[in-house]
Amino acid sequence: MTATVMAIETFSEPLVERSVPLPEPGEGEILVRIIAAGVCGSDVHIWRGQDVRTSLPLVPGHEGVGLVEASGGALADVDGNPVRVGDIVVWERGLACNACYFCVVLRDPALCMKRRTYGIHVNMDEPPHLNGCYGSHIMLRRGAQLFAVPGGIDPAIVVPAGCSGATTAHAFDMHRPAIGDTVVIQGPGPLAIFAVDFARRSGAENIVVIGRESPRTDICRELGATHVLDRKKTTEEERCARVAELTHGRGADWVYECAGTNGAVAEALNLARRGGAVLTSGIAVPTGEIPVDWYHTVNAKNLRLQGVFLSDTPHLRMALSLVYANPQIYAKLITHRFALRDATKALEAVERGETVKAVLLPEEA
Amino acid sequence: MTATVMAIETFSEPLVERSVPLPEPGEGEILVRIIAAGVCGSDVHIWRGQDVRTSLPLVPGHEGVGLVEASGGALADVDGNPVRVGDIVVWERGLACNACYFCVVLRDPALCMKRRTYGIHVNMDEPPHLNGCYGSHIMLRRGAQLFAVPGGIDPAIVVPAGCSGATTAHAFDMHRPAIGDTVVIQGPGPLAIFAVDFARRSGAENIVVIGRESPRTDICRELGATHVLDRKKTTEEERCARVAELTHGRGADWVYECAGTNGAVAEALNLARRGGAVLTSGIAVPTGEIPVDWYHTVNAKNLRLQGVFLSDTPHLRMALSLVYANPQIYAKLITHRFALRDATKALEAVERGETVKAVLLPEEA
Amino acid sequence: MTATVMAIETFSEPLVERSVPLPEPGEGEILVRIIAAGVCGSDVHIWRGQDVRTSLPLVPGHEGVGLVEASGGALADVDGNPVRVGDIVVWERGLACNACYFCVVLRDPALCMKRRTYGIHVNMDEPPHLNGCYGSHIMLRRGAQLFAVPGGIDPAIVVPAGCSGATTAHAFDMHRPAIGDTVVIQGPGPLAIFAVDFARRSGAENIVVIGRESPRTDICRELGATHVLDRKKTTEEERCARVAELTHGRGADWVYECAGTNGAVAEALNLARRGGAVLTSGIAVPTGEIPVDWYHTVNAKNLRLQGVFLSDTPHLRMALSLVYANPQIYAKLITHRFALRDATKALEAVERGETVKAVLLPEEA
Amino acid sequence: MTATVMAIETFSEPLVERSVPLPEPGEGEILVRIIAAGVCGSDVHIWRGQDVRTSLPLVPGHEGVGLVEASGGALADVDGNPVRVGDIVVWERGLACNACYFCVVLRDPALCMKRRTYGIHVNMDEPPHLNGCYGSHIMLRRGAQLFAVPGGIDPAIVVPAGCSGATTAHAFDMHRPAIGDTVVIQGPGPLAIFAVDFARRSGAENIVVIGRESPRTDICRELGATHVLDRKKTTEEERCARVAELTHGRGADWVYECAGTNGAVAEALNLARRGGAVLTSGIAVPTGEIPVDWYHTVNAKNLRLQGVFLSDTPHLRMALSLVYANPQIYAKLITHRFALRDATKALEAVERGETVKAVLLPEEA
Repeated sequence: MTATVMAIETFSEPLVERSVPLPEPGEGEILVRIIAAGVCGSDVHIWRGQDVRTSLPLVPGHEGVGLVEASGGALADVDGNPVRVGDIVVWERGLACNACYFCVVLRDPALCMKRRTYGIHVNMDEPPHLNGCYGSHIMLRRGAQLFAVPGGIDPAIVVPAGCSGATTAHAFDMHRPAIGDTVVIQGPGPLAIFAVDFARRSGAENIVVIGRESPRTDICRELGATHVLDRKKTTEEERCARVAELTHGRGADWVYECAGTNGAVAEALNLARRGGAVLTSGIAVPTGEIPVDWYHTVNAKNLRLQGVFLSDTPHLRMALSLVYANPQIYAKLITHRFALRDATKALEAVERGETVKAVLLPEEA
Repeated sequence: MTATVMAIETFSEPLVERSVPLPEPGEGEILVRIIAAGVCGSDVHIWRGQDVRTSLPLVPGHEGVGLVEASGGALADVDGNPVRVGDIVVWERGLACNACYFCVVLRDPALCMKRRTYGIHVNMDEPPHLNGCYGSHIMLRRGAQLFAVPGGIDPAIVVPAGCSGATTAHAFDMHRPAIGDTVVIQGPGPLAIFAVDFARRSGAENIVVIGRESPRTDICRELGATHVLDRKKTTEEERCARVAELTHGRGADWVYECAGTNGAVAEALNLARRGGAVLTSGIAVPTGEIPVDWYHTVNAKNLRLQGVFLSDTPHLRMALSLVYANPQIYAKLITHRFALRDATKALEAVERGETVKAVLLPEEA
Repeated sequence: MTATVMAIETFSEPLVERSVPLPEPGEGEILVRIIAAGVCGSDVHIWRGQDVRTSLPLVPGHEGVGLVEASGGALADVDGNPVRVGDIVVWERGLACNACYFCVVLRDPALCMKRRTYGIHVNMDEPPHLNGCYGSHIMLRRGAQLFAVPGGIDPAIVVPAGCSGATTAHAFDMHRPAIGDTVVIQGPGPLAIFAVDFARRSGAENIVVIGRESPRTDICRELGATHVLDRKKTTEEERCARVAELTHGRGADWVYECAGTNGAVAEALNLARRGGAVLTSGIAVPTGEIPVDWYHTVNAKNLRLQGVFLSDTPHLRMALSLVYANPQIYAKLITHRFALRDATKALEAVERGETVKAVLLPEEA
Repeated sequence: MTATVMAIETFSEPLVERSVPLPEPGEGEILVRIIAAGVCGSDVHIWRGQDVRTSLPLVPGHEGVGLVEASGGALADVDGNPVRVGDIVVWERGLACNACYFCVVLRDPALCMKRRTYGIHVNMDEPPHLNGCYGSHIMLRRGAQLFAVPGGIDPAIVVPAGCSGATTAHAFDMHRPAIGDTVVIQGPGPLAIFAVDFARRSGAENIVVIGRESPRTDICRELGATHVLDRKKTTEEERCARVAELTHGRGADWVYECAGTNGAVAEALNLARRGGAVLTSGIAVPTGEIPVDWYHTVNAKNLRLQGVFLSDTPHLRMALSLVYANPQIYAKLITHRFALRDATKALEAVERGETVKAVLLPEEA
C-alpha cells in the first residue's frame, strides 16, 4: 500500500506527485486518510519561498480533515470519547514540545519556540514522511489532539477552522470585545469572516468590515457584519469619519487587522478610540517597517495593541463551535474544490485572489 | 488677603510673580494652602511651549500637597473620614467631566476627552484664578477627591506620587507582571523609581533598570532593582543578551519604557519575549514616527503593547501606598527644594537633568 | 400644576393616589414625565414590608422611561449628544455618592454604601417628593446619567432593561462565559430572559434554561435557549444528568441562578463543572441559610462563586444594547399594561406570577 | 541494588519498611534519589484512612526533592537547560493526562479528572513501585516537569514549595490582591506562610493573620504580616471590628482561608468587604455542610468566592520564586527532620500540630 503526496521540490515550480509507502503507525501515532485539505494563503508564501520556516522537499498543507485509518493504540478525542477506525476527525495543526517554559509554565503552546506545524516546518525527508495535508494520507504524531467531526457536516467546511478560524479565535482569546462595542475588521478574507462571527458572539453592536465588496463581504454580512466600507470607494478619512459617526465621535472600541498590509495597520491605529484595542494578525511574512506616531496613536490614547500569531487547541475548539452552529453559511467559504493532483492550480487560484477558500479533495479522481 | 502665584506669561521667559485676591470657596470648593509643589518634566515642556494642551497665562503645577484653609461645606476624604481646616491633603490632579461615556460607562476618567488638569489646561484667566500649584494657594473644584496625608510624613515626599507615581500605577493597573517575572524598566527618572517599587510589589524576580548610573539608579536599587545596565557602557545588543541570559533565552516578560525616546521604544520591542508585554509611558510630547518591524517584533511574537498616559484616583491611591510604606527611601527623591519665587531656577535645574525630583516650597521665604 | 403619584402609606394596603405640586428643577435636576414604569418583583417585596431598605410613605418604582419636561440647565446623554425638552430618555436608577472609596477608588458605584435607588430608599417626604416611577413625574437628581431612547422604539419595552437587564448585565460584566461554553440559567423570569440573550452574545454553545414551560420559556427559546428543562417534569438528578450529557460528563461551565430559592442555589453548585462558575442573583431578600458541602462542591471543584446585586450605568448600557437589537422579541416581555391608578392590581398580578413583565402607563386614563 | 520505602499497609498502623528492586528507567522516566520528603497534613489524613483517593499499600509522600540517579534519555528542566545525573531537582507532583478537555482545551491540568499524584493515588503495587517520596528513591513518569534547584540552597527548604506553596500560588493565580489591599489570612500553617509572602509580593498594604501566636506567626511576621489576631484571645466580633478599623469600615479586600474548619469559612464571609474576595483552600477532606446566609454574605455584598484545590507546574514555579528569594526565612519552616525509618513518628508529630513543617531525610541513618 502506498500514499500519494504532492511535494514542493523547487520553490515556485509545479508540485510533484510522489508515492510513499504507507507506514504502520507507531505507539500513539494515527494514520489519517485526508478527505479535504485547505489551501491557505500561507501555502502560497511557502511555495514562493517567502516563508523562513520551510525547507524542501515539503508536502504542504497544515489544514486538513480526514478519516482514521489506523492507530498505534486506543484513541479518544478531547472530550474523552473513543475514536475508532473510520471516524472523521480534525486535529490541532501545531506540534508543541509540551516541555518548555512556554508550554508548561505559561501554558501557552502557541508561543513554544520548538513548535512546528505539519505542512510548514516538517520536511518530507523526516520519517514517517507523511507530514502534510497535500496528500492521500498524513501520519499524526503521538499526542495529537483530536476533535470528532459530527455526522451530517460536510468535512470540507471544517477545514478553514483549522487555521484561519483558530488564529482569529486566538485574537478573541487574548482580548475580547465587550457587549455593545463597535468592532472594525480590516481585510475580508477567511480570518475576517471568522472575526465577524466571533464579534457577533461577543456582543458587538456595530461590526464594520473594511474591504472590497465581493462574495467575501456577502458572507460577512450574513454572519453579522452591520456595515461594509468598500476600500476602493472610500478614503481613509471617510472611513475614520464613518466609524466616528457610529461611535459618537469616540472611534472603534476594537479593531482587528487581517488585511496583511502596512497601510492597514497604520489605519487601525487611527480608527481605534482612546483606550481601545488594535489586534493585528494579517502580517504573516516580513513587510518591512511601519512608521508609528507613537505619541498621538499609542501613548496619548492609552491604546492597547496585540500581535496575533498561530493558535492552539482551545482556539481550534472555538472555531469549530462557530462552523457547527452555521454549517450552511460556512459552506459558502468553500468556493473552490480541486483534485489532489491539481494542487498547483489551487495555489495559483489562491494567489490570484479568486477564492474565498480552496480545498484539495484527494479522494476525487 | 491675597495669594501669590508664579505665572508663565511668555513661553521660555522667566515666570512672573503675581498677586491674586483670595476668593471665598464656592459650594464644594476647597481653598488649599500649598506646602509643596512638584516641578515635573512636563512643566519644562509647558514652559518651552511644547505642550499643545496649554494656553497663557498659566500658573503651572499639577502636583501638590497642601493644607486645607477653607471649604464650601463639610469635607471627607475618599475613605469617608472628615477633613477639617488645617488638615494636610493631596488630591487627584485631573478634572474629568464625570458625565461622558468614558467617565460613566467605561468608568475610566483618565480617558475623558474633557479631562483637564490643574496647572496644565486651566488658564489663569479662568476664575477662581488659583488653578495651579506654583503658588501659595490653589482652589480645588467641586468633587475634588482627597487623601489625608498621615502625621509624621514630610509632605514634600508625597508630591511625586501625584503624577509620576500615579502614571506608573496606571501602567500596572492596565497590565501587571506576574510572580517570578523578569521586568525591564528603561529610563531611571521618577516614573522608573515607582515602577521598580511596583514591580517588586508585583512579585517580579528580576528587575532590570536600563539607564545611566546616578543617584537615581541608587534609589532604584534600594527599592528592589536587581540589575542596572548602564546605557552609556553597554550596547543595545549587550543589553538584549544580558536580559536573554537572565531569562534562559526567552527575553523579558514585561518591559516598561519611561525613557521618553524613540530609541527606547524600539529597544523595548526587542527586549520583550514572545507573548510578553511592552508598556510605554515615556513619550509625553510628539517625537515623530518610530519605524516598527511589525512582523518580527509584534506579530510573530504575539506581543502586547500598551500606551500609558495620565492616571486617575485609583492610581494616586496605589502610589501613595508605596510612599507611605517606605518614606525614608522616597525622601531621597526630593533632591532639590526651591522657594516659590525661584520657580524659574527650578525649571532650569529640571531641564538640565540635575534633579531626581525638585519641589517648590511656597512657605519658605 | 401638579403631579400624581401612587404611594405606599401602609405595607400591604392598597396604594394611595396623591397629588404633589410640580416643582421647578434645581440646578442639574431634570423633571421627567413618566411614560412607562416597571412593576418589579422587588416592588412586591417592598409593598409587603419585606425590604429592609424602605421606609414609608414611599412612591415605588425604580424602573422607568419618560419624556424630559424641564431641566435646570443644558443636558446631554452619556454619548455627549444634547438632550432637549420632549426627548424620551431612560436613566441609571442608582444614586451613588461619587465620593467614597467604592465610587472613586474601586470605580464600582454599585458597591457604594450610600447608594440609594429611586423608588426604594428615597422616601416620599424627601424633597422634591417625586422620588419614584409610580407617578406622572419623577425628578432626577443632579448628575443623572441619561440614555436617549431611539425613535421607533416603544418606550415600554425599554423598562425591563433598567433593573432586570442591568442586574444580569452586572453578572456578565463580573464574569463572562467563553465561546463554546455550556451555560445553565435557573428560573425563567426577566433576569433569565436577559441572561439567555447575554449568553448567546457571549458565544455559549448550549444555553439550558431550567424552569416551568410557559410564555417565559418561549421567549427564552426565541432569544437563543437551546434546551429547556421543565422543573416540574424532571428531578434534580435528571437535570444534572442532562447537563452532564451535553458536556461529555464535565458539567456546566457557567451557571446563573435567578430563581430566588435556596434550592436553586444548591442545585447550581452541583450543576457546575470543575473550575466552573456559579453566579447567583435571585436571592434579593433574606431566605435563611443554605447548607453547603464545601469540600465537594466548592473546594474540590475549584469552583468560582459570584454574588450579583444591583448594577451601574455600564450595565444599563449593555442591557439597552440587547433590547434595541431585538425590539420585537423584547416587546413580548410586556405582557401586562396597567393604568397608574391600578398600581395595586399590577402588584397583585406580579405577586401571583401571572406576568412576564407588567408596566404602569401613567398617561393612559 | 534495592530501594527502601516506607509503606502504609494498614490504615493507622505504623508504616512498614520494604525493599524494592531498583528498576531501570524506561523511556523518558527518571530515577531520583530522594534527599528530602515533606510530611504533609494530607499524609496524616491518608494514613488515618480519611482520604478517598487512596488505596493500600501506598508509599506516601507527594512533596520531595532529590538527585537524578538515572534517566531514560536526555533531560532538560522547564527552562530548557540540560539536567544531568547528579543534579538536584524538584518536580510537579501531579500526573495529569495531557489529553482531556481540562488539559488541552482549558489548559488547566489541575482540573484533570484523571490527574493522579505521587504518594496519594498511585498504589505501591503499580509498576515501577517507586511511587511516593517516603523512600530512598522515586521513579518519575515520562513527561515529568523538572526545576533545577540552584546551588547553595538546602534542598530540604524547597520541599514545602511543592504542595503548600504551589496550592497557595494557585489561589493567587486565580485571583490576586491589588496594590494597597487589606488581606486576611486564616490559619497560620505552611499554606498561610506562603500566602503572607504572596500577599506582600502582590502589594498588599495590610496583611492580617488570624491564628494562635506561635513560631508559625513569627515566620508570618518576618515575611510581611502586619497584624496577627490571636484566635484564642479575640472573639470573631473583635476580629471583624479590627479588620473594619483597618479598612475605614469596609472590610477586607481579600480573604484566604487555610484553617480548614467550617467556622473559618463562615468567618471569612463576614470579614470580606462588599465586592471583596474569599478564597478557600483549607478544607481538604469532607467536613459536612456549612450554613451560609446567602443574601447577606454573598448576594448583597457582590462577594466573590473561589475554591482552591491542587495546583499545576506554573504554581510550583511561583512558589519556588519565593523560597529562593528568602531561603533564610524559609529554612525556619523546617522545624523537624526525621530519618526515613521514623516516618510514623513524623506523621504523629504533624498530627499533634507540633511542627511547622517536618521532612524525612532518607540519606540520614
